[in-house]
Amino acid sequence: MRWNLTSDRVPQAWFNIAPHLPEPLQPPLHPGTREPIGPDDLTPLFPMALIGQEMSAEPWIDIPGEVMDILRLWRPTPLVRARRLEEALDTPARIYYKDESVSPAGSHKPNTAVPQAFYNKAEGIGRLTTETGAGQWGSALSFASALFGLECKVYMVRASYQQKPYRRVMMETWGGSVEPSPVDDPDQPGSLGSAISDAVRDAVSRDDSHYSLGSVLNHVLLHQTVIGLEAKEQLALAGEERPDIVIACCGGGSNLGGLAFPFVPDADVELLAVEPSSCPTLTEGRFEYDFGDTAGLTPLLAMYTLGHDFIPPSIHAGGLRYHGVSPIISNLVKAGRMRVVAYPQGKVFDAAVQFARTQGTIPAPETSHAIRATIDEALRAKEEGVERVILFGYSGHGLLDLSAYDDYLHGRLIE
Amino acid sequence: MRWNLTSDRVPQAWFNIAPHLPEPLQPPLHPGTREPIGPDDLTPLFPMALIGQEMSAEPWIDIPGEVMDILRLWRPTPLVRARRLEEALDTPARIYYKDESVSPAGSHKPNTAVPQAFYNKAEGIGRLTTETGAGQWGSALSFASALFGLECKVYMVRASYQQKPYRRVMMETWGGSVEPSPVDDPDQPGSLGSAISDAVRDAVSRDDSHYSLGSVLNHVLLHQTVIGLEAKEQLALAGEERPDIVIACCGGGSNLGGLAFPFVPDADVELLAVEPSSCPTLTEGRFEYDFGDTAGLTPLLAMYTLGHDFIPPSIHAGGLRYHGVSPIISNLVKAGRMRVVAYPQGKVFDAAVQFARTQGTIPAPETSHAIRATIDEALRAKEEGVERVILFGYSGHGLLDLSAYDDYLHGRLIE
Repeated sequence: MRWNLTSDRVPQAWFNIAPHLPEPLQPPLHPGTREPIGPDDLTPLFPMALIGQEMSAEPWIDIPGEVMDILRLWRPTPLVRARRLEEALDTPARIYYKDESVSPAGSHKPNTAVPQAFYNKAEGIGRLTTETGAGQWGSALSFASALFGLECKVYMVRASYQQKPYRRVMMETWGGSVEPSPVDDPDQPGSLGSAISDAVRDAVSRDDSHYSLGSVLNHVLLHQTVIGLEAKEQLALAGEERPDIVIACCGGGSNLGGLAFPFVPDADVELLAVEPSSCPTLTEGRFEYDFGDTAGLTPLLAMYTLGHDFIPPSIHAGGLRYHGVSPIISNLVKAGRMRVVAYPQGKVFDAAVQFARTQGTIPAPETSHAIRATIDEALRAKEEGVERVILFGYSGHGLLDLSAYDDYLHGRLIE
Repeated sequence: MRWNLTSDRVPQAWFNIAPHLPEPLQPPLHPGTREPIGPDDLTPLFPMALIGQEMSAEPWIDIPGEVMDILRLWRPTPLVRARRLEEALDTPARIYYKDESVSPAGSHKPNTAVPQAFYNKAEGIGRLTTETGAGQWGSALSFASALFGLECKVYMVRASYQQKPYRRVMMETWGGSVEPSPVDDPDQPGSLGSAISDAVRDAVSRDDSHYSLGSVLNHVLLHQTVIGLEAKEQLALAGEERPDIVIACCGGGSNLGGLAFPFVPDADVELLAVEPSSCPTLTEGRFEYDFGDTAGLTPLLAMYTLGHDFIPPSIHAGGLRYHGVSPIISNLVKAGRMRVVAYPQGKVFDAAVQFARTQGTIPAPETSHAIRATIDEALRAKEEGVERVILFGYSGHGLLDLSAYDDYLHGRLIE
């Protein structure tokens, strides 16, 4: 069963979590002075509208009409009841998922790429730079840039550039230009941290260019709240008062934040972040100020971090290979409002294949972390003999990650 | 703008075109005797329910509940107004497309894979064999077999097997078993005709197995009519009385038939089949009895054909590389009820990239043939200054065909 909403039900405003946080956020610090930064420090990178959103305390922020017109190409996304998975698990739990894989780029990432492209264009910027790991974010920004007639330059982690040529082609199809990173050392496989450094250096060196980030920052997570807002309305249509638990995978935190934030004020809704045990930022990292990139060019953020020089193993869920995590997510975890769990990738792919063979669609490796946790929660509900309503985030499809499934199916997956 | 229908609006019956044909169909002939075949001749390959549908004259055929339950995982599919493409073309035409790419396998093919798996299972069959070229059909049947607990064996044209490993992985993820064809000569690149021969030989050699075909036959096109039935209802919701023209790409004819057949009785709706000029079955083939496969194992069908030994050039639209075409489509073309047009693949990819950069999604190379024709019809409407309502079939996405876009974008496409 799917609950679709008509195009006019795309939310008209983003939900700002800031007024609802258990404790106030600690301010970002300037990388040179280590003093709190002000709006002017960010103008070489971002348009004023986004800087304003980054620091806003308004409970709701209106979505511009031009942004809504494009979001409506695929939004509202469906809410789906995973009945066949429930039957396979023989669980009394009712499992719902919010399907963000239906966007042109195949994930939730365009929800923020579109407003970022819009606000930059509105302030006279003609070119955006960004980094991408596995390619989901670079694809989304290339797509959004195409629709607003902006140039888009993507620095892609060299290892992914070489291993995932289809992601590069996807970006080029939308007119994006893709370069392997680090640019100054063709022998290095690169990392997300080093690609951020390349993209930031490029943006500050040209007047016509800004930098665009696909996760971590407050305004990015803000834009993703359309996911949770729609899900709330659709759960009501499905006859559910509320979910007992909301589950999503967590890399930088934008998919998790987008789905979970609108449920934060509902104290009886449990929130669960799922991460890979090979990059255990929330489960094993320290809460402290750290840089977002390897070279130390970005402001310092108060967050859980494994250290900005941490290089995660080369697992297939490239979107979850990041040393840090959103300050807002960190805040919620630190305050005990959000639970965390980590899984090794073998158990994650067990869940992915079970999902594909019951519900039909093939999930992204990142998404499969949420599916693993969902299956375990549903089995616990069965053991305990209790009905539970589980909502999880289906953040993207796995059609450009099939080599990961190949490794799994033929016993070549590294734990 | 998208028009979604709720899950309860999946059609309850398939539309049988047989009573509406301009002339009666000529019967299939036995490959040995060249006499008209009867139902018994087909029982080694197909279940009785499908043989009955192949020959039925009933105007409507009920869809079993178990089939509808699975179709509802993704159906009804959206009808989308391509406003951004209209604006880019500055055309007075209103362009709508029926988006079949949202199925788990990414195309319209599961619409028939699901009922075929269902009827086989219902008659005690435990295993299906089939062929696949580019992989769309093999993926769909693997998916459907997984959901009904059937084994699925796919003979994949060796050239595709080697060039498109992701399609193989997709089939394996759903539990399918994939073998390159021809099986008896590992040095041959293979063709759809030879893979059909392999799959038929396998099916007739085992009691537990049947053969399954993804296009051409009457019952296959019957199952696809859910596409056109839904589109009719959605066009009404969009405020359109009827389309002026219905456009779809045509290989074996199942996507085209599925969309167009429910409009055949509406005499003022023009129907247009689009094929590649490198495999010009309808535009340059002869109407005559021919085999469906290379080895001459299948019944002879009265259809347009380039000859069963025709090997089409290796274009990227693998789903359109077939020497023959559905007898029903042939019947409509021969009677003048359906127009045909052919395009070289360079012009097709021009249209595909224009679509991706305006509407956002990346279409399959097959689908892009319909987009090319749609753009040309819309430009003609602009020249003539007339409003026209165009409906085209968005039969599948191009996410597993990105190497084709790579060739196009870097000047390596062969015309």
